Amino acid sequence: MKINGIAYRSIWRPSDDAKSIRIFDQTRFPWEVEVLELRDVGAVAHAIRSMQVRGAPLIGAVAAYGLVFALQNDASDAALEKAAADLIETRPTAINLRWAIERMVTRLRALTPAERVEAGYVEADAICDEDVQVNEAIGRHGLDLIREIWERKGKTGRVNLLTHCNAGWIATVDWGTALAPIYMAHDEGIPVHVWVDETRPRNQGSLLTAWELGSHGVAHTVIADNAGGHYMQAGDVDMVIVGTDRVTAQGDVANKIGTYLKALAAKDNNVPFWVALPSSTIDWRVRDGVKEIPIEERSQNEVLFMTGLTDNGAPGRVRIAPDNSPAANPAFDVTPARLVTGLITERGRCDASEEGLKGLFPDGQ
Amino acid sequence: MKINGIAYRSIWRPSDDAKSIRIFDQTRFPWEVEVLELRDVGAVAHAIRSMQVRGAPLIGAVAAYGLVFALQNDASDAALEKAAADLIETRPTAINLRWAIERMVTRLRALTPAERVEAGYVEADAICDEDVQVNEAIGRHGLDLIREIWERKGKTGRVNLLTHCNAGWIATVDWGTALAPIYMAHDEGIPVHVWVDETRPRNQGSLLTAWELGSHGVAHTVIADNAGGHYMQAGDVDMVIVGTDRVTAQGDVANKIGTYLKALAAKDNNVPFWVALPSSTIDWRVRDGVKEIPIEERSQNEVLFMTGLTDNGAPGRVRIAPDNSPAANPAFDVTPARLVTGLITERGRCDASEEGLKGLFPDGQ
Repeated sequence: MKINGIAYRSIWRPSDDAKSIRIFDQTRFPWEVEVLELRDVGAVAHAIRSMQVRGAPLIGAVAAYGLVFALQNDASDAALEKAAADLIETRPTAINLRWAIERMVTRLRALTPAERVEAGYVEADAICDEDVQVNEAIGRHGLDLIREIWERKGKTGRVNLLTHCNAGWIATVDWGTALAPIYMAHDEGIPVHVWVDETRPRNQGSLLTAWELGSHGVAHTVIADNAGGHYMQAGDVDMVIVGTDRVTAQGDVANKIGTYLKALAAKDNNVPFWVALPSSTIDWRVRDGVKEIPIEERSQNEVLFMTGLTDNGAPGRVRIAPDNSPAANPAFDVTPARLVTGLITERGRCDASEEGLKGLFPDGQ
Repeated sequence: MKINGIAYRSIWRPSDDAKSIRIFDQTRFPWEVEVLELRDVGAVAHAIRSMQVRGAPLIGAVAAYGLVFALQNDASDAALEKAAADLIETRPTAINLRWAIERMVTRLRALTPAERVEAGYVEADAICDEDVQVNEAIGRHGLDLIREIWERKGKTGRVNLLTHCNAGWIATVDWGTALAPIYMAHDEGIPVHVWVDETRPRNQGSLLTAWELGSHGVAHTVIADNAGGHYMQAGDVDMVIVGTDRVTAQGDVANKIGTYLKALAAKDNNVPFWVALPSSTIDWRVRDGVKEIPIEERSQNEVLFMTGLTDNGAPGRVRIAPDNSPAANPAFDVTPARLVTGLITERGRCDASEEGLKGLFPDGQ
């Protein structure tokens, strides 16, 4: 997608420095567009942990290159196993990370150590290219839903969507998951308007999604995370669409903390609640998401401090609780499948259920 | 309650300046404890609108004095009506404001203009004193619930409560509504722990409730508004208790935006959801809260900027969304009675229903 008219992916290998990758430092968005150069596995792990890169699909892609970087000095089986384990540990909830690393390991283990680095770049590039195609397909399947709403409304007014966190192009290699259908609807002239949940504590909604949508010209309104239920009661939300960090074999959805509350409100008000995901986000090994998915606990400072732009124009932060008050910071929650209208994947839409998922992915395991 | 060991009410008339009132500037908490002196109706209206005072019961008490101030130069019927109308307009959702003003008008209209100012002070003082007694009664009735949980848990571990916004002593004249039972439980030795919802956009939870609880020594943890559902799923919340700005005749509850989402999560996880209120918060003229209660829309800047303490130790703010992204800011939402386990009033507990309310308040109208 474009920044100031120039098309970017969220990760790329520069032709004049093809052993390294470039990413945007997403902790600086939207105040600064800063490109970071990563060329060793330590920097990749730091970028993932510190959320310079975030978004389940993008984390997987970046980690794939991280594995290649780790093999540049030592491409032995032992080095491969260790780097894979270290990278998988950087974020515990998103499953695309494990998926990408396992795909890389499967591919590279079959080769001799001498072949691994070069083949690794090819495989990581393929992960990126496939992510773009997959998200474009998700966009098309989700676009149908938006078009149906628009037609049901007699093509009057606007289609009001609500999203939580950021599942846009910068959370993937390109297009995004939840935002891909919105971009496509906008591009084909459907007047969409997006309620953008702020998404405390890290504000990926107000900082990233609002910036993405604004850059593409999509009408949107930032709201406190608390407000979505009210707008659903008032009939001002036609559909909720979010991304996900892990979907279980029975269709439970782990996503940014607070997603579950929006799903409850959607159910209570008969608002469709859709989840957009590449199939790499499905964890076939897990069934009960509430019981089985590990929820990452992040620093309490993400709650106690709010970062943004200070009045003097520089990024800064304010403390929003008394000095002696502790905070807790679970980064994700799990929305049970019963609250999910359906899943939007690269192969089409399905029920959030084992039958639904197996229908589209009979080979899933 | 106490600040640094000294007992205060949140509003008082100083003995050496008894024509005026003193309040705390609650926009400065917890960083500064600043006492404001109010002596004219304009200053009172400003204090209410700008949320220097907030909390439905306290707004009512402050407005009562505002009405008296307005009569000091002109105590005619016309002046009384005009001041009453102006004050009621300052905040549209909280009903105690209207209740207090109507009580004052009923009392004063029966007197000659010459008697009104003196009688007004007496009546406003009575509103304050009664508020303290009412909240103490609410505290006792709510304390029973906490004690029952503690006993059911075999007096092991702790009782985990979750609250949204601030319904503590500074939201009332003293004691608070939702926090009164918690203070009493703490004081009698029950190990309570409170999950404090940050309560965006104005952060009355992380700024005011955390400060109140901390000042009184009550264990608490600040969490993002998004996190409560996750803790309920995990079994880490024994009871939700909140205040309210208006309860309808059928038991619907208007309260700080986001309350509805917590009520949905409580219902979904069989967590009791209680609402604490003085009977002055009941609006007998309204039945369907979602359809009939006006929801105040406040400045979008409350969403777009976050205020707090900057790293240099001074209060300040950061912008948390791109420059060209608009925001919307509904200040309240309505929780339908079906999601409310019960109401805690000064006369005891009841179902959130017409029958429940009429059982305790047969004279309600």
